Amino acid sequence: MTRHLEESTVASQVVYEGKFLRLRHDTARLPDGSVHSREFVEHPGAAAMLALGDDGRVLIERQFRYSMGGVYVEIPAGKLDAGETSLQTAKRELLEETGYTAREWGFLTQIHPAIGFSNERLDIFVARGLSLLQGRQLDHGELLDVDWATVGWLVDELRAGRLPDIKTQIAVFWLEKLLSGAWPWPVFEPA
Amino acid sequence: MTRHLEESTVASQVVYEGKFLRLRHDTARLPDGSVHSREFVEHPGAAAMLALGDDGRVLIERQFRYSMGGVYVEIPAGKLDAGETSLQTAKRELLEETGYTAREWGFLTQIHPAIGFSNERLDIFVARGLSLLQGRQLDHGELLDVDWATVGWLVDELRAGRLPDIKTQIAVFWLEKLLSGAWPWPVFEPA
Repeated sequence: MTRHLEESTVASQVVYEGKFLRLRHDTARLPDGSVHSREFVEHPGAAAMLALGDDGRVLIERQFRYSMGGVYVEIPAGKLDAGETSLQTAKRELLEETGYTAREWGFLTQIHPAIGFSNERLDIFVARGLSLLQGRQLDHGELLDVDWATVGWLVDELRAGRLPDIKTQIAVFWLEKLLSGAWPWPVFEPA
Repeated sequence: MTRHLEESTVASQVVYEGKFLRLRHDTARLPDGSVHSREFVEHPGAAAMLALGDDGRVLIERQFRYSMGGVYVEIPAGKLDAGETSLQTAKRELLEETGYTAREWGFLTQIHPAIGFSNERLDIFVARGLSLLQGRQLDHGELLDVDWATVGWLVDELRAGRLPDIKTQIAVFWLEKLLSGAWPWPVFEPA
């Protein structure tokens, strides 16, 4: 049904390999036979989570994002290390960035943040039964504050345009659906 | 309040200039005095729109996204040309990609799709009073189908994980808020 839209790869080349980013420049053939450049950032994939406290509040971070030149409210997240599943990444990042572990985890959805110029896939989880296990172990050059936010505050910030980070905005919308009963909670598995 | 998180630029360099993408490699100083690499994709900004038909349906596109290797349901969108406002971009892209113009336009929100590796800002608009003005004028190498979708279908697809494109997912969540009366409609301006 969508065969008439599909492109095939004629050539593929890594044109830049940076410290964090890898850029591909491919040549693609369209269904009409014409040939075009396709550039994109290779991404290992990422995981993020709604970490819910027993009082219903959500664990958030404030972090300076250099590319944007500003501080963002975000849910905890991070890139997959080699060989990791996204759930393993989520558990690792929650512990490293906040010091918390969760008793149970459920999968919410996968989003694709930048389909025009990257192959990033980001899995969003929900975690419950949090306990503070240890001090944080931030990556080299990583600096962030951890805080708790009510769902009401997050929705107000979102509506006011102060939650522009897409993984956080989408997670808040999903959480509202779960809390209102409009959508069922995911199946939770013990950590 | 967030000064203790802020980074400053020590050096800045364009390390790759492609056909579509431009990559920067900067050096940033953290508040603790340490110095770190910061790489990101420079993006001109983008605009997308919920184009609402008189029957309440939403104008969507199906397009093959090479970086992801698959066909996506998306609302119409495009990158800013030099000197354009995001509203001008939205009007231009709606016409070029679908052949429609809109009688009135309102601004919904700005989202930041990839704060970890790009400075992209994307403005989402809502457009009403559509009329089919002309044939489409797709960019070179651009191939897409145009269709109408009900809000109910979009929400079902979203919940099932089949709407992973973030601008489209976020626009659908906002539209539900407007249609339910939970949030007010934006101020509309004539085109």
